[in-house]
Amino acid sequence: MKKFMNNAEEMLNESLKGFGIANADLVKVYENPHFVVRLDAPVLGKVTLISGGGSGHEPLHIGYVGYGMLDAACPGEIFTSPTPDQILAAVRTATGGAGILFIVKNYAGDRMNFEMAAEMAMIEHAFMVPSDEVVTGDAAPKIPGRGMAGTVIIEKIVGAAAEAGFDLAACRKLGERANGAMRSMGVALTSCVPPAVGRPISTIGDDELELGVGIHGEPGRMRLKMMDADDLVRQMIDSIADDLSLKPGETILLYVNGLGGTPLIELYLIYNVAAKFCRDRRLKIVRSLVGNYTTSLEMAGCSITVCRLDDEFIRFWDHPVHTASLRWAR
Amino acid sequence: MKKFMNNAEEMLNESLKGFGIANADLVKVYENPHFVVRLDAPVLGKVTLISGGGSGHEPLHIGYVGYGMLDAACPGEIFTSPTPDQILAAVRTATGGAGILFIVKNYAGDRMNFEMAAEMAMIEHAFMVPSDEVVTGDAAPKIPGRGMAGTVIIEKIVGAAAEAGFDLAACRKLGERANGAMRSMGVALTSCVPPAVGRPISTIGDDELELGVGIHGEPGRMRLKMMDADDLVRQMIDSIADDLSLKPGETILLYVNGLGGTPLIELYLIYNVAAKFCRDRRLKIVRSLVGNYTTSLEMAGCSITVCRLDDEFIRFWDHPVHTASLRWAR
Repeated sequence: MKKFMNNAEEMLNESLKGFGIANADLVKVYENPHFVVRLDAPVLGKVTLISGGGSGHEPLHIGYVGYGMLDAACPGEIFTSPTPDQILAAVRTATGGAGILFIVKNYAGDRMNFEMAAEMAMIEHAFMVPSDEVVTGDAAPKIPGRGMAGTVIIEKIVGAAAEAGFDLAACRKLGERANGAMRSMGVALTSCVPPAVGRPISTIGDDELELGVGIHGEPGRMRLKMMDADDLVRQMIDSIADDLSLKPGETILLYVNGLGGTPLIELYLIYNVAAKFCRDRRLKIVRSLVGNYTTSLEMAGCSITVCRLDDEFIRFWDHPVHTASLRWAR
Repeated sequence: MKKFMNNAEEMLNESLKGFGIANADLVKVYENPHFVVRLDAPVLGKVTLISGGGSGHEPLHIGYVGYGMLDAACPGEIFTSPTPDQILAAVRTATGGAGILFIVKNYAGDRMNFEMAAEMAMIEHAFMVPSDEVVTGDAAPKIPGRGMAGTVIIEKIVGAAAEAGFDLAACRKLGERANGAMRSMGVALTSCVPPAVGRPISTIGDDELELGVGIHGEPGRMRLKMMDADDLVRQMIDSIADDLSLKPGETILLYVNGLGGTPLIELYLIYNVAAKFCRDRRLKIVRSLVGNYTTSLEMAGCSITVCRLDDEFIRFWDHPVHTASLRWAR
């Protein structure tokens, strides 16, 4: 295992310190317990958005704390749920008095710990659970699917709505509507090596790929022989489009997310192939996102997300955002 | 070799197509020959900034085409200089009539082809040659150093100045001043695999790292045993600070760049260590950049760049920028 670190136990702490110093104009990083809040927190009168989950998926979620997106993020140890005391501390620091929406990807441990913290906080709150993984097809996993890269889109859209004054119930409803409007599917070419484990958590052969992989390197649906990008992406777009029941003429956001170890030149190639198959289905791509937004340490691989768009989604997607890893003012 | 592609010959072309579709609100991608221009080119009356070089370093340079940065970029084949006809075509499409500044990293092939195209174009022009690599120390390479990740800072600062109305001579002078104010040093943990080659271009052992590596995987200065981040970064900051003759109290930009295969959690850890050693030297870090901005395909590794800042550099660094891979309006 070769990683830039001093020791595995302190890796997350040292990395979060660096994140805090590098982004001191946007966020404040707390220790003991760890959480990240936007610099101007609490934003009074605004619904407070809090997310979190295991680390190792950077920039998710810490990179999305700031104006127009999250108020706070709770990073657990690598691939480990944040603890209730982390979440509770974030709640107490970030709450703006208009209720808290917890955005918690669909993993049992994350949900349990966030629910425990929410109960302890005794504060008005609601849950929104991203579960954007494709769940139909030949080898369907559990329903609903796992939370994947689409979580970034949900956090962006709901973040803009909260900034625009939506109340807690409306933020939650919008997030659930966005979650229902998208599907994601992942593919891995290599495993990743969690520092505390010190060895690959799965083995993918030199001529193999793992289709339908989760963002922690969990086994996917199918171990297949390595194939051309055209053949691979066709399967992924077919699965996504079928699961979403996409119709010709519909308007979409097309999002290719790198899992960490795949260079941008390959991600843009995947995007090109995906765009071709979307156009073959007469889908109108009106927004795009390509890059490493939800990773799995240094895993080589990517995911494709398609989100059906309407005017409300487009308006909130385009809304200004000012975070470490998503930033624009269109 | 496992890569997301269809075939090595078409990889760059397919990737550039994807880049163009995903960023159709920012750029236009031309084929036969390949070049990328900002959507509103030519910008009349503004100095035209054109860069380029071998592909495989994405987002360099295509990701920096747009308002506040480059007018055009010429991507050569992977790790191969762009041809004069590419450069000439970019010149003809992007020229705004106020002269062209070519920003060409210090590699013999790039410089030769850009100079040939500039002569053929018979248009007012100047050259600015990023050479930010550390060049002193125990095992000094050729002087001046190679162009590395610091090129992004130069393109950002000069791009803002051109937008603000600086003339050709002033843009060139500013770029040279920025180049002289910074140094970069790289380290690789793994090799990369150029698709047309199909195998690693160097071999770094499981317990080794290569210090002083270039952005094409060229041999570095020293092959060392793997070491802690603290020990590694101390050497890098010492080399950079000595070569720049940094004095206590000086104001700097600290920039940790990923070479492609290293996850963000490690880059922020490197940043944290680098910031600690900068503070030990009583340097004031007032701007930061952390991420994959100048890569070497899927190589695991990073570079550290320190740029001495003054008010003019800060003003142009903070100036709004709207490109695929660097975007803000502070």
